[in-house]
Amino acid sequence: MRILLVGAGGVGSAFAAIAARRGFFEALVVTDYDGARADATASAVGDDRFSSAGSVDAGDADAVAALLAEHRCDVLMNAVDPRFVMPLFRAALAGGVTYVDMAMSLSHPHPERPHSETGVKLGDEQFAMAGEWEAAGQLALVGMGVEPGLSDVFARYAADHLFSAIDELGVRDGANLEVEGYDFAPSFSIWTTIEECLNPPVVYEKARGFFTTPPFSEPEVFEFPEGIGPVECVNVEHEEVLLMPRWVDAGRVTFKYGLGTEFIDVLKALHKVGLDRTDPVTVKGVQVSPRDVVAACLPDPARLGDRMTGKTCAGLWVTGTGKDGEPRQVYLYHVVDNEWSMREYGHQAVVWQTAVNPVVALELVAAGTWAGAGVLGPEALDSVPFLDLLTEYGSPWGMREGG
Amino acid sequence: MRILLVGAGGVGSAFAAIAARRGFFEALVVTDYDGARADATASAVGDDRFSSAGSVDAGDADAVAALLAEHRCDVLMNAVDPRFVMPLFRAALAGGVTYVDMAMSLSHPHPERPHSETGVKLGDEQFAMAGEWEAAGQLALVGMGVEPGLSDVFARYAADHLFSAIDELGVRDGANLEVEGYDFAPSFSIWTTIEECLNPPVVYEKARGFFTTPPFSEPEVFEFPEGIGPVECVNVEHEEVLLMPRWVDAGRVTFKYGLGTEFIDVLKALHKVGLDRTDPVTVKGVQVSPRDVVAACLPDPARLGDRMTGKTCAGLWVTGTGKDGEPRQVYLYHVVDNEWSMREYGHQAVVWQTAVNPVVALELVAAGTWAGAGVLGPEALDSVPFLDLLTEYGSPWGMREGG
Repeated sequence: MRILLVGAGGVGSAFAAIAARRGFFEALVVTDYDGARADATASAVGDDRFSSAGSVDAGDADAVAALLAEHRCDVLMNAVDPRFVMPLFRAALAGGVTYVDMAMSLSHPHPERPHSETGVKLGDEQFAMAGEWEAAGQLALVGMGVEPGLSDVFARYAADHLFSAIDELGVRDGANLEVEGYDFAPSFSIWTTIEECLNPPVVYEKARGFFTTPPFSEPEVFEFPEGIGPVECVNVEHEEVLLMPRWVDAGRVTFKYGLGTEFIDVLKALHKVGLDRTDPVTVKGVQVSPRDVVAACLPDPARLGDRMTGKTCAGLWVTGTGKDGEPRQVYLYHVVDNEWSMREYGHQAVVWQTAVNPVVALELVAAGTWAGAGVLGPEALDSVPFLDLLTEYGSPWGMREGG
Repeated sequence: MRILLVGAGGVGSAFAAIAARRGFFEALVVTDYDGARADATASAVGDDRFSSAGSVDAGDADAVAALLAEHRCDVLMNAVDPRFVMPLFRAALAGGVTYVDMAMSLSHPHPERPHSETGVKLGDEQFAMAGEWEAAGQLALVGMGVEPGLSDVFARYAADHLFSAIDELGVRDGANLEVEGYDFAPSFSIWTTIEECLNPPVVYEKARGFFTTPPFSEPEVFEFPEGIGPVECVNVEHEEVLLMPRWVDAGRVTFKYGLGTEFIDVLKALHKVGLDRTDPVTVKGVQVSPRDVVAACLPDPARLGDRMTGKTCAGLWVTGTGKDGEPRQVYLYHVVDNEWSMREYGHQAVVWQTAVNPVVALELVAAGTWAGAGVLGPEALDSVPFLDLLTEYGSPWGMREGG
């Protein structure tokens, strides 16, 4: 396997560090809009399978396809922000290679009723091209990070091995991370966090289909495991709600993010002022996207690992009827302690947890354990080899009976 | 009197519209960094005493001094944001003319103890040059808007006519303005509001001198008159606290601004993210000041008048001992109804209320009623002719006995 890794930011460089310990691929070529960052990521791992292809515009499908050909890659690993999903997805299709991403094509709200009906949903543009991938016999594995990604693997595991009927698949994400020396320092890309949190959250109900709500709806306090404790969670637009119902039978699918009150207040304020906007404003003669300015004001989350303490938890709360016909609730989860990920890999917990999952997935694809054609979510494939291999990577998952 | 008006934004253009109804000056020359805006302000009033000097950089004292000479002006009226106080103040001194502003030179926080001690205070740079103004026999009338400005006139009035001893001079500013069609639309310059509200508030106590507190300290609900009602007010850095103790004897001087909880939350969030910063950040290769981006995202407050409803109140709450030796409390105030200011002048209430005061002051200077040399605050001069002339302008002030 020869992998073109597009994106050498926090998640991309953690992907490289994790992959470097595994033998399943022959070459990993790194590229980024910042060529120096690609060079640094390729050389940091000290592994001669790694090289840099320098700078590329991820929005230029032809340029990316040319890199795939030049480096004879058979996998395009997308580790850039979701604005670039479609050009990279098209480049991979055109290049005849396997495609993996960790976030799906962006949504567009319903023009009249954004807070009750869906418009263009997350991934719609990708699934619209599923026939072309099937016809070409190519695999696009979409939403293959931690959330979406591992959470979807958990859904498949619950359906196959734990439940006879599922009432609700409820992704619940929470952390107790703190960053020393900063009033406010998000541990994940603020661009993506704004996109997720300010778009109208989408909910799936079997009887009703997909629908939306106002942002930050249905607040609930969820108790996270391994000492993280209670965190206030709210509905957020997320890929799992769109992916899981395609392959797993459930009465309801939700995603709630443990943002905490302070973070929610900041996001609401940014939205009030219009600083979440991505279309440019003119400031003293120069054009800038306000959301890019927000990102530029904050520290790079990938560089905060050595000032962070705490754990991050991704998981799926499943309610329904067990295999024995009795009511059952479980919380399937994966916790990463920042202290561990920094010591072991030099990458902070949130980006490490995102990056490990596509490495595991690609190892299964390289081995032929995971195979398919078309546009598939993680829940389309067998969960057990994935969960076993994740444990073999030194990062086990857990299950809490009773939800 | 020949006036050079520097700044044709909201307050500058309201100043022009108010002055146009008065006969005390011979010429008013408008200039702005945006020459077209200066032209528009000069021509909007339809008065041949008005002309435009086109574009100027208010930070270039030599260029401003050259305009003063070219147009034979004897007054420089500063209506730009307080970043430009010092170059304009110097241009007026060099040009031998009278200077009027509505905000004083900026503060710099104490480097080690910003939330308990003052550093460079508002106006310090101006007062440091007072000797030069005195020696030249020239008048610099500083802080001559509504707050500072009319509030300072009220302080002098209270000391001369209502109290034998003053415990506290407490400026209290509140409004019930709403802007239709906007989630969030400040009715005054966001640049200046951020500056005022996020700098450490300054408080004066006779026994202790000047000291600072953390932002948004000492919240209190103040009941505003004429139907505005209760508004939550917090300590804010403001010129009155520095000006009043220079000429009026009081035990304590405070400024509390009725920001309301929503506005405070937005300001706190902007500060957390660092969007209140004025030093530039690099965003995809271009340099921008985050605070300028915030301003660019919001509607221009000067253009919101026809969507606004409600009233704005500026006032001074005075507590102490009355002339009869009994305890006394009064609230001296000035309310502008946006519906009235839009109908009468086509300018919204907040900018109109700021702009009317320097027009009244200059009319008193033109008549010789107000005269002096040096750097003077409004409380250095007789309050009665000012309050009478303000009433003659159709905008009376009020007094509520009991505070």
